[in-house]
Amino acid sequence: MVDGIERPLDVLNNAKGKEVLIQLKNNKQMVGTLLAFDIHINIVLNNAKEIVDGENKRSLGLTFLRGDTIIFISPANVVK
Amino acid sequence: MVDGIERPLDVLNNAKGKEVLIQLKNNKQMVGTLLAFDIHINIVLNNAKEIVDGENKRSLGLTFLRGDTIIFISPANVVK
Amino acid sequence: MVDGIERPLDVLNNAKGKEVLIQLKNNKQMVGTLLAFDIHINIVLNNAKEIVDGENKRSLGLTFLRGDTIIFISPANVVK
Amino acid sequence: MVDGIERPLDVLNNAKGKEVLIQLKNNKQMVGTLLAFDIHINIVLNNAKEIVDGENKRSLGLTFLRGDTIIFISPANVVK
Amino acid sequence: MVDGIERPLDVLNNAKGKEVLIQLKNNKQMVGTLLAFDIHINIVLNNAKEIVDGENKRSLGLTFLRGDTIIFISPANVVK
Amino acid sequence: MVDGIERPLDVLNNAKGKEVLIQLKNNKQMVGTLLAFDIHINIVLNNAKEIVDGENKRSLGLTFLRGDTIIFISPANVVK
Amino acid sequence: MVDGIERPLDVLNNAKGKEVLIQLKNNKQMVGTLLAFDIHINIVLNNAKEIVDGENKRSLGLTFLRGDTIIFISPANVVK
Repeated sequence: MVDGIERPLDVLNNAKGKEVLIQLKNNKQMVGTLLAFDIHINIVLNNAKEIVDGENKRSLGLTFLRGDTIIFISPANVVK
Repeated sequence: MVDGIERPLDVLNNAKGKEVLIQLKNNKQMVGTLLAFDIHINIVLNNAKEIVDGENKRSLGLTFLRGDTIIFISPANVVK
Repeated sequence: MVDGIERPLDVLNNAKGKEVLIQLKNNKQMVGTLLAFDIHINIVLNNAKEIVDGENKRSLGLTFLRGDTIIFISPANVVK
Repeated sequence: MVDGIERPLDVLNNAKGKEVLIQLKNNKQMVGTLLAFDIHINIVLNNAKEIVDGENKRSLGLTFLRGDTIIFISPANVVK
Repeated sequence: MVDGIERPLDVLNNAKGKEVLIQLKNNKQMVGTLLAFDIHINIVLNNAKEIVDGENKRSLGLTFLRGDTIIFISPANVVK
Repeated sequence: MVDGIERPLDVLNNAKGKEVLIQLKNNKQMVGTLLAFDIHINIVLNNAKEIVDGENKRSLGLTFLRGDTIIFISPANVVK
Repeated sequence: MVDGIERPLDVLNNAKGKEVLIQLKNNKQMVGTLLAFDIHINIVLNNAKEIVDGENKRSLGLTFLRGDTIIFISPANVVK
């Protein structure tokens, strides 16, 4: 559901507590539950898993991601 | 129609709710419906699809794109 | 004609409505009609065409270019 | 335990005095005890060890890490 | 003549109207007549020529160069 | 000794006058005596030596290092 | 002589009028007489010479160097 998205950060706010896919600049991806973010797009995921070439590479648990390494964030399965 | 474009962000404002093509720095492209943007050119697309080498690679749904990874945004089929 | 150019942005202001060549950092070029720019050198081109290795690769129509991907902008055929 | 995490830096604050894994942009990792951080995500680790390809490469002791080289910070074994 | 150079931008100010060599980060060089610059080191050259591997590759005429792509600017033959 | 480190720069302050190891982004390292630093992590070393692949490559003496090229700074042998 | 160096820029101030070695990010070096600098570490050298692989490649004369391309600056032979 995309109603009520006026600003880009609204998407992140709506995704709190839900699973998101994050594409990083180093060709890796992270999936996890979005716990927190700030205006620099620094992100905290819970139950974070690092994915390389489509395979689950590492379970990282609670993880702080620095915003400037992020390409996109997709709360994929949240949309209907 | 390009009347009324005084500042670069006017193009993005006119493209809200329409399909756009976004070229990213990592040689990938995204297409999707532009929902929101801010002055950092952070972007929200709905029904985002990632395109690599001209082929639809992944359907991402609702997606937040960080502005500093974007090369250009083209609301291509909107222009007459 | 280069009279009256006191600051770099004067060149872009004089080129509004005219064809420009833009060299991007990813070794690609764009040509198109300059519609708008801002102090970040974000650019809007109309009838934008992407050029790779001297060949017209894609017609993009109206396009927003993020300033930090630009190396140079040349309103080439405007100068006498 | 992830209660009480409102902002990304809360994760780092909770991890003070505990072991963290830090992924750097140069494909290296550091592990060590988090002593201090600031809003630029500059970090101080004690008993820092540099890890390359999963192997302990160098023991560095007390180390100051510049924030802009960091991809993620994971206080991995702290979470239950 | 280097008298009266107190700040780096004094060199650019003295070079206005004169030929300069500009080394860009993409291993290319530009030569042309310096018309204007600003504090971001955005530059306008007239009669700009792009030089690759020591050979004149393209005549660009009036050209706006974005400051963050510049390594050095040398008003070479102006110095005695 | 790590008592009294509240902020990351405290580590650098404590290391003044002592030998530090600095890892640079270009895969090189510097060792030398830390004389001064600022909030950009610009650094001055005395008796600086450049190290490449573990070998002492060049003795540089007094050297100013620009902060944005630094990955980490380790006052290694100072810690007990 | 390193007395009186409280802040990193003091080293550059003391080196005015003296020969310095500058390491650039593109693996090239410059030597020349330091004439001026600013807080961005923009630099003006007189009698600048570009050095590649230890060989004098080009004499550039008076040269403006953009600060963000600089790794280190060493007024090497000035120290006793």
